Amino acid sequence: MRRWNGWGDETTVVELPSHGEAFLAELIGPGQALADASLEQVLAKVPASRLSAHPLVSLDAEARLRHARGQSLADWLAMRSGEFGVFPDGVAFPESAAQIRQLLAWASQQDLIVIAYGGGTSVAGHINPQASDKPVLTLSLERMGKLIEIDDDSLIATFGPGANGPQVESQLRARGYTLGHYPQSWELSTLGGWVASRSSGQQSLRYGRIEQLFAGGKVETFAGTLEIPSFPASAAGPDLRELLLGSEGRFGIISEVKVRISRLAEQENFYAVFMPDWQQALAGIRRLAQARVPLSMLRLSNAGETRTQLALAGHPQQIAWLEKYLALRGAREGKCMLTFGVTGSRTQNGASLKQAKALLKGFGGVFSGTLLGKKWVENRFRFPYLRHGLWSAGYAVDTLETATDWSNVDSLLNKVEVSLRDGLGEEGERVHVFTHLSHVYGEGSSIYTTYVFRPGNSYEQALARWQRLKHAASQTIVANGGTISHQHGVGRDHAPYLAVEKGELGMAALKALSAHFDPEQRLAPGVLLEQ
Amino acid sequence: MRRWNGWGDETTVVELPSHGEAFLAELIGPGQALADASLEQVLAKVPASRLSAHPLVSLDAEARLRHARGQSLADWLAMRSGEFGVFPDGVAFPESAAQIRQLLAWASQQDLIVIAYGGGTSVAGHINPQASDKPVLTLSLERMGKLIEIDDDSLIATFGPGANGPQVESQLRARGYTLGHYPQSWELSTLGGWVASRSSGQQSLRYGRIEQLFAGGKVETFAGTLEIPSFPASAAGPDLRELLLGSEGRFGIISEVKVRISRLAEQENFYAVFMPDWQQALAGIRRLAQARVPLSMLRLSNAGETRTQLALAGHPQQIAWLEKYLALRGAREGKCMLTFGVTGSRTQNGASLKQAKALLKGFGGVFSGTLLGKKWVENRFRFPYLRHGLWSAGYAVDTLETATDWSNVDSLLNKVEVSLRDGLGEEGERVHVFTHLSHVYGEGSSIYTTYVFRPGNSYEQALARWQRLKHAASQTIVANGGTISHQHGVGRDHAPYLAVEKGELGMAALKALSAHFDPEQRLAPGVLLEQ
Repeated sequence: MRRWNGWGDETTVVELPSHGEAFLAELIGPGQALADASLEQVLAKVPASRLSAHPLVSLDAEARLRHARGQSLADWLAMRSGEFGVFPDGVAFPESAAQIRQLLAWASQQDLIVIAYGGGTSVAGHINPQASDKPVLTLSLERMGKLIEIDDDSLIATFGPGANGPQVESQLRARGYTLGHYPQSWELSTLGGWVASRSSGQQSLRYGRIEQLFAGGKVETFAGTLEIPSFPASAAGPDLRELLLGSEGRFGIISEVKVRISRLAEQENFYAVFMPDWQQALAGIRRLAQARVPLSMLRLSNAGETRTQLALAGHPQQIAWLEKYLALRGAREGKCMLTFGVTGSRTQNGASLKQAKALLKGFGGVFSGTLLGKKWVENRFRFPYLRHGLWSAGYAVDTLETATDWSNVDSLLNKVEVSLRDGLGEEGERVHVFTHLSHVYGEGSSIYTTYVFRPGNSYEQALARWQRLKHAASQTIVANGGTISHQHGVGRDHAPYLAVEKGELGMAALKALSAHFDPEQRLAPGVLLEQ
Repeated sequence: MRRWNGWGDETTVVELPSHGEAFLAELIGPGQALADASLEQVLAKVPASRLSAHPLVSLDAEARLRHARGQSLADWLAMRSGEFGVFPDGVAFPESAAQIRQLLAWASQQDLIVIAYGGGTSVAGHINPQASDKPVLTLSLERMGKLIEIDDDSLIATFGPGANGPQVESQLRARGYTLGHYPQSWELSTLGGWVASRSSGQQSLRYGRIEQLFAGGKVETFAGTLEIPSFPASAAGPDLRELLLGSEGRFGIISEVKVRISRLAEQENFYAVFMPDWQQALAGIRRLAQARVPLSMLRLSNAGETRTQLALAGHPQQIAWLEKYLALRGAREGKCMLTFGVTGSRTQNGASLKQAKALLKGFGGVFSGTLLGKKWVENRFRFPYLRHGLWSAGYAVDTLETATDWSNVDSLLNKVEVSLRDGLGEEGERVHVFTHLSHVYGEGSSIYTTYVFRPGNSYEQALARWQRLKHAASQTIVANGGTISHQHGVGRDHAPYLAVEKGELGMAALKALSAHFDPEQRLAPGVLLEQ
């Protein structure tokens, strides 16, 4: 069963190894565990619903509780403390586009706020109801997860919007296909959510971001149904797909999604290369991206992340041997782990591997083979579970991300790390910070930073610390040429920072679109656009 | 000097070879040449301007004449007959964003219509002034063609919007870079025009369409300046770049363009392969695209185009030997020419060529080496000049295009060809029609059809024939799952067909954006959106 107050399935438990705990204690001090609220305690707090009965809507307290918060660290603290804040007044489970339209009509008639809910994995406050005079209806798409049809010639699959990662892949793999979209949240997040929030997957280098995968579909809005046909490309005016991508539930409810799929590749392998230092690593990965070497994944950990990963990896003896070997070959203190994947035919993969190895060798890279690559594949969706292990040990962990042009990557990365590392300095509290680049482009790269801090003595203190850190980093990002999000979206948490990059006129254009599709402003008010 | 009544530079003359004339005469009857008007005759028809004087605006009759029409066949007939229709009241030549803003303010104050003019190469009526109570100011960007800066790390170049193809490439190549964007109109069309009309180049398979190349920039609108920063990717809400791409001068005047450039490749080669028949050719090219073989260009002529190209190629003796060789290897009547390019390092190109040859051999392809590939490179921008040669011989030629998913390519292509081939059947007039696929994607392909017909005995008859053919094909395209344009844009000529693919709600969204950026509706009214 899915956890009501954390990530993923209850049966998956990821603990922090004891040497990992010692590593963190040395860096930022011993952990400070806070007590969790129980489900019963929270259920007792769910207020009476303000909704009248509707056959498609559940007013059940536990359903409302389970759709009240996402997965940001603020959500985590709310769930763990039991102080959930606002609950939706009801949760609807439509099974068709017609039922979505029926629910929207009802919302209009009953004067409701409507929040679209996919997998509830937002880390930016997309699905959290806010206090409002109007009752809030959360609209879960979980019963609309079926593969509807496949066009085998055009490699287009049509899905319901509620299909989560495993549902998408299992239905496609049974017919020899893959979508190849693997965000970290893949186990729970959904196709409709990926489209609405401009999601990016770990193998976007081969398969593309959701912008490239999304071919068309249907959206139910308060102004009618928008149907976007699939074309391989078009010059017929602005692309309506791109209006929907990133609209975050403000324009309508996605009721059908067409995606570009691929035949399953003959072969896929992942490799790790250790680069002697950050500057060489950065130059090497940039060159790989700009030389269009056809890799399927490319990820570079900075020295801090490399050290942390090796320390938390388990098997300290094996790691010690690896480090000895690397040191002999020139990758010592300050080394950076670069992971890459090749996916395709054996011929293609052979050619790609050869090019990548030769190029990285020119930047001092030490090739370590497939073992760590295999580890990466095994653990690719495990990271969100680690929040539990860290929490039990008395540490809070969060991640944030941006993207910028190559000429600014190093500078922005450093500023973001410093803003976090020094963020609790006034309290004399240390923060452990490390970073990787996980999505590289010819023009630049994403920057993905993890930070670990101690929650302090109370939930209030923990939340205040997080808010201070989050604001410092967000402010640093937009003031220094980064986008406020490369992959997590805007939601409520990033909305105050959006105008810096969109400009006044751009924000007004988005508001004009929101007013066009949702004249009474019922859809997720405050998400994406502050008003 | 640029021709005032046709394509390109006056010194470039492409004539129809005599055996080509015989080929066409047999297919659709002997040519019917019509007399051309002279420049003096047309200049005498330019009416007095309704504009008051402005230091940045020319009221000169020849300048107004030279900015009155684009390059559609309707434009051609207007220019050749001397019946230009409406002339702009003046042409402005701003040299900076500040001057563009000054001109927009003046237009507002003087109650003018404003039309942005890049290279004047539209084949869909984008830049043609319409009869209006308000004077029309055409705003040419030709003095804003400079390279402003290059970010060598991020491979981003910033240009003025008026840089045409040769200006873009010469300024980049001097520093070791290329944009790699080569639409057929490359000699005259401009960067700003490419962005505004969602242009696609012949090597988009490697470099991407303009959507992928356009990284950001500035637009001067009646509601203020929109500045779009460059990010490699972003999940921060809908992408404002995508609003601008395809907006066709309805939202504002582009004053600066940032593009993603590439280092010049080590090596580039083009090859021709003859496929035994259309079905094998179609299956082969689809498989090449879906297998992600890293080619830089891929183009497939159907049997009709292959036959026509070989007939019009010149060197009939060489062609006869080629056909004998191909027949021995299995490519006889009905054969289809496939051209592909590889661009990159020697290693990459070797690997790509090997994969492409092996794959196409599996579909019966006969590899003919690089000779015809070299011919293609030599002649890649020559086709628009051929309209002159055909016209002198008494034939009118036009092209039109669409894109659709692979499952629909063959069917739609046939329907479009039939709509043209039978389009003048009531008059007992034959039309010669042939097609190629020039932009292929995993999902589907563009379809680019050329049709040659006789103009009849008068310009009125020629225009009526063209209108009948254009309408029949456009109607066929949108009624059968094609986009009204893959690369030429919407303009005025395609605007009546746009609602079929955008839907009522989508059209209203585009109108809401137009009203947002241009509240008094001064910018190119009737272009893209019929109102």
